Amino acid sequence: MSHHHTYKKLEMVGTSPNSIEEAIQNAITEIANSVNNLDWFEVTETRGHIINNKVAHYQVTLKIGFRIENS
Amino acid sequence: MSHHHTYKKLEMVGTSPNSIEEAIQNAITEIANSVNNLDWFEVTETRGHIINNKVAHYQVTLKIGFRIENS
Amino acid sequence: MSHHHTYKKLEMVGTSPNSIEEAIQNAITEIANSVNNLDWFEVTETRGHIINNKVAHYQVTLKIGFRIENS
Amino acid sequence: MSHHHTYKKLEMVGTSPNSIEEAIQNAITEIANSVNNLDWFEVTETRGHIINNKVAHYQVTLKIGFRIENS
Amino acid sequence: MSHHHTYKKLEMVGTSPNSIEEAIQNAITEIANSVNNLDWFEVTETRGHIINNKVAHYQVTLKIGFRIENS
Amino acid sequence: MSHHHTYKKLEMVGTSPNSIEEAIQNAITEIANSVNNLDWFEVTETRGHIINNKVAHYQVTLKIGFRIENS
Amino acid sequence: MSHHHTYKKLEMVGTSPNSIEEAIQNAITEIANSVNNLDWFEVTETRGHIINNKVAHYQVTLKIGFRIENS
Amino acid sequence: MSHHHTYKKLEMVGTSPNSIEEAIQNAITEIANSVNNLDWFEVTETRGHIINNKVAHYQVTLKIGFRIENS
Amino acid sequence: MSHHHTYKKLEMVGTSPNSIEEAIQNAITEIANSVNNLDWFEVTETRGHIINNKVAHYQVTLKIGFRIENS
Amino acid sequence: MSHHHTYKKLEMVGTSPNSIEEAIQNAITEIANSVNNLDWFEVTETRGHIINNKVAHYQVTLKIGFRIENS
Amino acid sequence: MSHHHTYKKLEMVGTSPNSIEEAIQNAITEIANSVNNLDWFEVTETRGHIINNKVAHYQVTLKIGFRIENS
Amino acid sequence: MSHHHTYKKLEMVGTSPNSIEEAIQNAITEIANSVNNLDWFEVTETRGHIINNKVAHYQVTLKIGFRIENS
Repeated sequence: MSHHHTYKKLEMVGTSPNSIEEAIQNAITEIANSVNNLDWFEVTETRGHIINNKVAHYQVTLKIGFRIENS
Repeated sequence: MSHHHTYKKLEMVGTSPNSIEEAIQNAITEIANSVNNLDWFEVTETRGHIINNKVAHYQVTLKIGFRIENS
Repeated sequence: MSHHHTYKKLEMVGTSPNSIEEAIQNAITEIANSVNNLDWFEVTETRGHIINNKVAHYQVTLKIGFRIENS
Repeated sequence: MSHHHTYKKLEMVGTSPNSIEEAIQNAITEIANSVNNLDWFEVTETRGHIINNKVAHYQVTLKIGFRIENS
Repeated sequence: MSHHHTYKKLEMVGTSPNSIEEAIQNAITEIANSVNNLDWFEVTETRGHIINNKVAHYQVTLKIGFRIENS
Repeated sequence: MSHHHTYKKLEMVGTSPNSIEEAIQNAITEIANSVNNLDWFEVTETRGHIINNKVAHYQVTLKIGFRIENS
Repeated sequence: MSHHHTYKKLEMVGTSPNSIEEAIQNAITEIANSVNNLDWFEVTETRGHIINNKVAHYQVTLKIGFRIENS
Repeated sequence: MSHHHTYKKLEMVGTSPNSIEEAIQNAITEIANSVNNLDWFEVTETRGHIINNKVAHYQVTLKIGFRIENS
Repeated sequence: MSHHHTYKKLEMVGTSPNSIEEAIQNAITEIANSVNNLDWFEVTETRGHIINNKVAHYQVTLKIGFRIENS
Repeated sequence: MSHHHTYKKLEMVGTSPNSIEEAIQNAITEIANSVNNLDWFEVTETRGHIINNKVAHYQVTLKIGFRIENS
Repeated sequence: MSHHHTYKKLEMVGTSPNSIEEAIQNAITEIANSVNNLDWFEVTETRGHIINNKVAHYQVTLKIGFRIENS
Repeated sequence: MSHHHTYKKLEMVGTSPNSIEEAIQNAITEIANSVNNLDWFEVTETRGHIINNKVAHYQVTLKIGFRIENS
């Protein structure tokens, strides 16, 4: 039998008023409440909301990959 | 601590014999049975099945975004 | 010998003054005059012509798949 | 001197609570207040807002092409 | 009431030391432990890990579609 | 007069229960019944049908290029 | 009954030792031998063959649209 | 009459010697001199200029969306 | 205060009966009537109109970037 | 000083008369003659040459990533 | 003889535990050891590795352009 | 042992004040100083610099493929 792992990818939108990096970490922190074995992320979209001519929130869409338990 | 929300996106295929709009709504209605706080959708693909030279079903792939509870 | 079907895809532009769905059906109806076994379609582009600030025609590009006879 | 026309494309988001087609027409009607010679449109994105598990608005991004006056 | 099915798509990464086909099947076999009615897959990325100048694992990203129970 | 060839590309979907390579060859074998001078192919999509949690058919979309006779 | 036209798009590769424009025209001239009502083209790829460090042929892939007779 | 808003999107390139976030804000600040109701942005490209092996400026292309006055 | 420039990009379609290069220059010449500081262009689409089996006009879509005055 | 690695990606076309997997391995084996620390690959294109209605060679374009020595 | 420069683009992956900007600079600093006349970069992918639910490294893929010596 | 060739692709930007074709040839001529067996090119981007409302240089990005010596 061949040895192998299997992974799943979830698509999240993390937000932050401060930076793209913080928006990424916020999404990871949130999904870590319900998913184990988080392994990598891929940013697919960077956008944001503008209020009073300032960036109010960065909204970063990312795919988060994790190994399926016992795979 | 910075204030922020986090969102998740699911990918669905809604179908309808009648219209693209109905296929979109059918996917939303179905996922609403198990997910709260549905917020937006993005159409990523429009296709369909042909029977007897008529569109039998529109098949609309869409991503549906929702806010994660308590985020 | 393995059992299998083979399909061909044609690229059409259907038009309609009324709706995207009718433009799709118009392309299918037209190609059905010369091709059998039409099976599915995929929309690849939605555009249109404007006259007097009204949509005069929707122009929907779609790929139409059909099984090759006896394949 | 070679004879030719020149065109410009604007990117708009039309919205409608009812249909994708109405969202397209709403964007065209709005831009017609300030631009002449509207000639064609190209849909680049279809998305929308969900309220109470219903599509509240379709949001259709489209590029609208028009001939530059006297070109 | 119109008759229709609704589908969901999951994004997986299957791996195999042997072939792209086996990596695809491995992802399907794994997700079948927790999801019913698997219907189709779409490959979105093919990559892999190299050890000692040999392909150590193929890593195939695929979307797997399934019909939602009772839809 | 400049010397040149002209080519046409057809879009096919080959299928096979066994492998991606066989699906490609099946499409080529089928189209060779009606077209001469087949020259190259380009894979544009790899997907498949799942039955009982096994890949039942690979469905490989490919463009097949051929030189137009006497061009 | 709504009035409308239907179009078909063919994918060709025109070649020329001299220029991209000539490669485009060569493909159109060739397909005009067997198809009527040619209406527009869209370039999708520009590549070429190099011999002795010179461009030997431009190879321009284009889609050519034509109105279906009597549509 | 259906109630709806209409939006326009402008494409800008903001620059900054310091960070991607500052380049985004610089573009927003500049366009705010001539446009009201700025609502959201979407990053479409991130690039930059290198001088003496250091990033001299980040150049961030973004689309900026705003509601059309009185729409 | 950090020193920086800001740029805007417009999307145009230049046309010419003669060449792709002339279509590009025609768009630039036209927009130069109303915009200063034109700096660069990016071709995003090359298409054209066919009359009597000849290219009647090349239609080249391009984005044209310019520095915003006093930015 | 922050600890980090840096990687470079090369673009290769591996070929094989037998399979996609062998074409991938052939490219890796070849580049291993001149580059160390090969780490991963990403397939970006799968095409091939047809002779006498058979696949004569698979031509697989892949990017191959490797860690830069001492980085 | 026409005057012109020629440029080459390399594809790198820079990494950093701290920020996207630092990952970009790290790739530039590394390649500057072996290449002169670095001129610009283009980010093509932003991803990263997750350890213990924290971003462990940002991995930024970028193309780096430089003028070929004496061109 | 199966017989096969292996190819490498380089990414270049050729420039010319005169035409897209000359920019392509300029890149090929330059790289031919250091690389043998140049075989084909693929244009991936066409842009340029504007000075005084004229195209000052076409900048054509192309991938250039060559067979690896003795492969």
